[in-house]
Amino acid sequence: MLIQKPDNPAAIRNASRQGRFSGPTGGLALGKAQANLAILPREAALEFLIFCQRNPKPCPIIDVTDPGDPEPKQTAKGADIRTDLPLYRVYKQGQLVDEPTDILSYWRDDLVAFLIGCSFTFENAMLSAGLPLNHHRQGGSVPMYITNIQCTPSGRFSGPMVVSMRPMPLKKAIKAVEVTGRYPRAHGAPIHWGDPTAIGIENLAQPDFGTPISFTHQEVPMFWACGVTPQTVMMESKPAFAITHSPGHMFVTDLRDEDLMS
Amino acid sequence: MLIQKPDNPAAIRNASRQGRFSGPTGGLALGKAQANLAILPREAALEFLIFCQRNPKPCPIIDVTDPGDPEPKQTAKGADIRTDLPLYRVYKQGQLVDEPTDILSYWRDDLVAFLIGCSFTFENAMLSAGLPLNHHRQGGSVPMYITNIQCTPSGRFSGPMVVSMRPMPLKKAIKAVEVTGRYPRAHGAPIHWGDPTAIGIENLAQPDFGTPISFTHQEVPMFWACGVTPQTVMMESKPAFAITHSPGHMFVTDLRDEDLMS
Repeated sequence: MLIQKPDNPAAIRNASRQGRFSGPTGGLALGKAQANLAILPREAALEFLIFCQRNPKPCPIIDVTDPGDPEPKQTAKGADIRTDLPLYRVYKQGQLVDEPTDILSYWRDDLVAFLIGCSFTFENAMLSAGLPLNHHRQGGSVPMYITNIQCTPSGRFSGPMVVSMRPMPLKKAIKAVEVTGRYPRAHGAPIHWGDPTAIGIENLAQPDFGTPISFTHQEVPMFWACGVTPQTVMMESKPAFAITHSPGHMFVTDLRDEDLMS
Repeated sequence: MLIQKPDNPAAIRNASRQGRFSGPTGGLALGKAQANLAILPREAALEFLIFCQRNPKPCPIIDVTDPGDPEPKQTAKGADIRTDLPLYRVYKQGQLVDEPTDILSYWRDDLVAFLIGCSFTFENAMLSAGLPLNHHRQGGSVPMYITNIQCTPSGRFSGPMVVSMRPMPLKKAIKAVEVTGRYPRAHGAPIHWGDPTAIGIENLAQPDFGTPISFTHQEVPMFWACGVTPQTVMMESKPAFAITHSPGHMFVTDLRDEDLMS
């Protein structure tokens, strides 16, 4: 095991590749963009890429590999998508069948990897702008909710948008819109703030994913489109074969957060 | 023939559909976004969509249809991509074989239509901002040049970026960067200004497409990524079958220019 965590993109990817690191990537290599991973057979890739094109808020594509090519050339030259994440999830017919530290034995010539922008990018920008992130202080992961907002479908891929929620002091809510709105390739501005029932969320204390978070009457709940959306939509289509990152164990790219600005 | 040109998106599309309009769309329906059209068989569509994702400056995708579906739902509900443009070009093995006013007889169940942002959008914004467009005053089409900047390839699709050139008074060049930079889904900010040889253009008086344009020593040439790029790249791959709009005869969407802002 590592005594000290690797803290730059190449070091994190190398340590993952060599089996020396399999932990979550949150808080590591601050300032470098991390990405959600989704891998599908070529047969499903066009429909999925069109889905992402139609739903850019939850699914901002930052890289797509050539079929069978494990190198994500646009985001990390020389990296290997099969080994350079700390932890993966492998699905068959929509069922989780394995959670390996590499996917070399699962790789096929027809697989296409999609890298999708991640909220860590705009959270770094929020912290730099003096905006509080309660879930960091409370030590949990951000709470996520399935909304009643339907994504625009593409072929077999359809389903509701998943959002993450961050409470914000009312006086800072507009600043939070401005700061996150600068990063359209990392979910961008929130899709809603205020009354959760307006987007189909009945009970903030019972998130569908992540950890509930407490907030005060001086704070307003703000909702951002979430990278869990494409994973949920993908799984609901019960693909014969799919691979994703394990939650929180992202691909750390060589892009700067600023590269995901408009 | 029409006495008066149609001047809103639905009227232009309807007149095209009914065979009453087959002219260029420049200057019509100002404030509504127009789009380049590229149609390819499904077999080539994934590679082409990945090409566009990798080259967003020349190829900003604003809509992709489902295979076989002629309705571009994201940009003009109810429209029919087979009839609603004034004039098309049909290619077989990369050779122009027809220039029809509709493509009903060419339509197939495996065709995917791509709509790509158009410089008319940012030109409207430039005019609103008081920036001069010499090619409008001189009555020609904008001059376009093949550069030495290679696009990032995807499968069979590769080639150089084509740029359009607009001369700008030096004092207004920065404003032109700012104004066009607000429209990343319509080519966005220029990719270069000044010395044409820096991007492989030897002679501004001999454009590869369009009309040469005169300018003075007080003006600087500014270069924007151009929607001719994806067409050129597509044709160089000699696809078995492809359809595009005829130059200047664009698809007029229901989107506002502002919808193509960041």
